Amino acid sequence: MRLRGRKGILESIASQTDLVVLDAAQYKGKWREFFGNDRPIYAELGMGKGQFISQMSVRNPEINFIGVDMYDELIRRASEKARAVWQEKGEAAPPNLALLRANIENIDEMFEENELERIFLNFSDPWPKSKHARRRLTHPRFVERYIDKLNEKGEIHFKTDSQSLFEFSLNSFADMGLVMRNISLNLHKDEPREDLVFTEYETKFHQMGQPIHRVEVVIGEAALAQHREQLKTKYRM
Amino acid sequence: MRLRGRKGILESIASQTDLVVLDAAQYKGKWREFFGNDRPIYAELGMGKGQFISQMSVRNPEINFIGVDMYDELIRRASEKARAVWQEKGEAAPPNLALLRANIENIDEMFEENELERIFLNFSDPWPKSKHARRRLTHPRFVERYIDKLNEKGEIHFKTDSQSLFEFSLNSFADMGLVMRNISLNLHKDEPREDLVFTEYETKFHQMGQPIHRVEVVIGEAALAQHREQLKTKYRM
Ligand SMILES: C[S@@+](CC[C@H](N)C(=O)[O-])C[C@H]1O[C@@H](n2cnc3c(N)ncnc32)[C@H](O)[C@@H]1O
Ligand SMILES: C[S@@+](CC[C@H](N)C(=O)[O-])C[C@H]1O[C@@H](n2cnc3c(N)ncnc32)[C@H](O)[C@@H]1O
Repeated sequence: MRLRGRKGILESIASQTDLVVLDAAQYKGKWREFFGNDRPIYAELGMGKGQFISQMSVRNPEINFIGVDMYDELIRRASEKARAVWQEKGEAAPPNLALLRANIENIDEMFEENELERIFLNFSDPWPKSKHARRRLTHPRFVERYIDKLNEKGEIHFKTDSQSLFEFSLNSFADMGLVMRNISLNLHKDEPREDLVFTEYETKFHQMGQPIHRVEVVIGEAALAQHREQLKTKYRM
Repeated sequence: MRLRGRKGILESIASQTDLVVLDAAQYKGKWREFFGNDRPIYAELGMGKGQFISQMSVRNPEINFIGVDMYDELIRRASEKARAVWQEKGEAAPPNLALLRANIENIDEMFEENELERIFLNFSDPWPKSKHARRRLTHPRFVERYIDKLNEKGEIHFKTDSQSLFEFSLNSFADMGLVMRNISLNLHKDEPREDLVFTEYETKFHQMGQPIHRVEVVIGEAALAQHREQLKTKYRM
């Protein structure tokens, strides 16, 4: 059988209306209608082939997940991945997952204020040249948009192999006065923990022996209050 | 000639009252008397053999410097280093430098509130075992003391080769709600800059190809105000 051409790919994803959304603006402010409930929504921006978001959706049935990428072919591969992991669980279709084909530049079209509870940025393109700094997904111009979309429990979870992107991102978050937590320069130094869901890039770089960097940014007021409580326990204050 | 014994070392540093201070509490609140002026005071906690503090004192004659270490032998070596670099400049003795033999655990005996303007922590002992975390010089129990000693322009500048100590320190500063700046995971990635003064450990690790990590923590109100102004320019806000 031949590989499907561009048109074939688009037809394939366009027919999956239970899982795939092609119109970036279609569910803005109405994602709870898509999912049929008002559970918290976690989005991965730049999900690639969808391993992380698929696994996360299976492991956390009480959360709704949205995987965003801009390429039809990646949406198609992610849809196959997602259906496969849910079928293993005996489910015909992923009940708590959407795959959104959209450019993150247009995030204001995609989500309403406070509509998301968590944003995952996993192995975002590093854009190493400083003239391309504005394209990095942790540039303040993006992070401002994320803050706008996150609710009172909002957090941003960022992982990358790229030392230079991580450095840039820490400075970006610090310069914005944001509260960082669980900073790691070598996330899987000890045995990789069972509860950490790997992305495709993470698996690849970890197998190559590259250290993975991680930081969580606490955004929402309720998340900040909870974080402060946890710090009291941590430092027995 | 034989190496001097312990007693010889102590005698040698005890005689250098123009440069060396052996009684930790002697100048608490009176360091301006030691220096004979009220210029800002920068201290390096754990200076080792004194290369950094000696070079800094020569390059910045308008600042007073205090190098702290707890070992007589290191104070002796630092005193020789300091006299040597100032002699190259044609000065008989370092006019803006003190070498304080003291244990940083006793920092409250050594400095009055607001007496310091900057604290350097260079290649502090990493204490890798988690049961020794409290001994790390960037543990919140130490950082609280530093904040107490720093004035309205106060900053902490930290460099290390140790990835685990750097990770610990970033989390420590973040958990304390402090403002970080100029985070670098590989300080000398490009050609080492002329204006960066190397420590002994830094020279060694850099030559071995180990990346050097750096972070600056902005503490004082005036320093924070200036930092915020600089961010406006950086992000053209
Ligand atoms: C390096 S891959 C990482 C994929 C996945 N998160 C992982 O960790 O394996 C980055 C992904 O982000 C997507 N991406 C980059 N910029 C994007 C944008 N502006 N809008 C949507 N997707 C984007 C790319 O198409 C790519 O799939
Ligand atoms: C790893 S060396 C680094 C020396 C120097 N800063 C450098 O970068 O080359 C750490 C130094 O801190 C000193 N030190 C460690 N704990 C100390 C304490 N509690 N009080 C005083 N000095 C201490 C040690 O004696 C040692 O000279």
